[in-house]
Amino acid sequence: MVTYRAHVEYDGTRYNGFQIQADKPTIQGELERSLAQVTQQSVRVTGAGRTDSGVHAHGQVISFKAAWSHAVSELQRAMNATLPDDIAVRDVAVAPEGFHARFSASSREYVYRILNSAQRSPLRERYAWRVETPLAMERMAEASGLLVGRHDLAAFGQPPVGTNTTRNVLRAVWASAADVLADLPEAEAQPMLAFRIEANAFLRGMVRRIVGTLLQVGQQHLSVAEWQDILLSRDISRAAAPAPAQGLCLWRVRYEHGGAPEE
Amino acid sequence: MVTYRAHVEYDGTRYNGFQIQADKPTIQGELERSLAQVTQQSVRVTGAGRTDSGVHAHGQVISFKAAWSHAVSELQRAMNATLPDDIAVRDVAVAPEGFHARFSASSREYVYRILNSAQRSPLRERYAWRVETPLAMERMAEASGLLVGRHDLAAFGQPPVGTNTTRNVLRAVWASAADVLADLPEAEAQPMLAFRIEANAFLRGMVRRIVGTLLQVGQQHLSVAEWQDILLSRDISRAAAPAPAQGLCLWRVRYEHGGAPEE
Repeated sequence: MVTYRAHVEYDGTRYNGFQIQADKPTIQGELERSLAQVTQQSVRVTGAGRTDSGVHAHGQVISFKAAWSHAVSELQRAMNATLPDDIAVRDVAVAPEGFHARFSASSREYVYRILNSAQRSPLRERYAWRVETPLAMERMAEASGLLVGRHDLAAFGQPPVGTNTTRNVLRAVWASAADVLADLPEAEAQPMLAFRIEANAFLRGMVRRIVGTLLQVGQQHLSVAEWQDILLSRDISRAAAPAPAQGLCLWRVRYEHGGAPEE
Repeated sequence: MVTYRAHVEYDGTRYNGFQIQADKPTIQGELERSLAQVTQQSVRVTGAGRTDSGVHAHGQVISFKAAWSHAVSELQRAMNATLPDDIAVRDVAVAPEGFHARFSASSREYVYRILNSAQRSPLRERYAWRVETPLAMERMAEASGLLVGRHDLAAFGQPPVGTNTTRNVLRAVWASAADVLADLPEAEAQPMLAFRIEANAFLRGMVRRIVGTLLQVGQQHLSVAEWQDILLSRDISRAAAPAPAQGLCLWRVRYEHGGAPEE
């Protein structure tokens, strides 16, 4: 048995999240079904991030153990041939001994996209949350900056059972993002914003509650001081409702030492 | 009864094309269902382009006649509130007397997107056709240029019953298009191409057969001279298979004189 790792990209719209569930389509379920078909073994897949229902991924990382006697490129080809159209694997490779997609990860980065427009746009809204009201970006940037550092973030999500709620946020920035339809000269670009947040690990629902609450700051319903109060409150009832799933994408996972366990 | 016009944007993935069909989801069917609900009248909707099953639209134009005693903005709001997530109307307005979305149109423009990559990418492939092999863009550009002008294009599609197959192509160009995922500094952009074609009108399946055949030129299976032969042959059996629907988008419809009938 050899340990493998791979990048996985998916459109999460029609899945009940990453983690396998009986009788519901999940990313893990599809990956394990593909591996069972390809390797004729029962293979358990671990993901770096357990994305929720409807959340997308550009750079999810998985690990799994399997016996495979052909080239690794052949394993990737066979997986892609058996996966549904909305899930793809790339960079399938042999991983260092002891590599574990979740436990070995040093940080995860998520991107949350907002279409800031009064006008509906189905071609943009599959991967973005449309917000009609104007947003005070400088206030949202200031508030986001307060996230960086090690904090108890219980206000924004629940931890896995038996673990704590302190997380180390490495980056939390807003930027203009490319309008996906503005690639032609005469297209009317619509304002698209992207929130990037990187942390050692995330609590369940954390990015979406942070975005939902930051929007309250951008819409002048909360001051930056009130935002900081909520951030430090450890009280999940003070956070805004989570922003919808379709705007969220697991962008990248980082591994120090190439993911090999430290000695 | 007043004539209205509107722009319609849709993700065509789950529809059997624009034109209404019994017991199958169609764009026209959803628009008429919405208008029946909103106006309490039976309203017939006309589209400028009858997009096929799975084809998207950014700038479809529709016209319809209805009696509506409230503000036009209210009609638009009510339609958007009753349409599914993947169809939206904008710019709903009173049209000049006699305006007809299809017959009044002076030209239509389609965009066909290609992801030219050996690597699958579900987040890009919903709105693009992935082509693995390298493409000789200068040959495709040269071949596309030969489309411009008035030609009998029977090689690329069937006309509506009782009409001819001569069409006036106003523009046919290839360009690099923005990679929809390259809006973040560290993202690895993938080569995305967009073919724009504008003509007075299109034959059924015309853009997709043109793209399929142009790809044969780009992949060196056809010379530019052979392409020109096919273009002028009026023989649909010589064209390549149509490129898949998901890469195609009805981009824009133009009306001279604002769509008012000429005197």
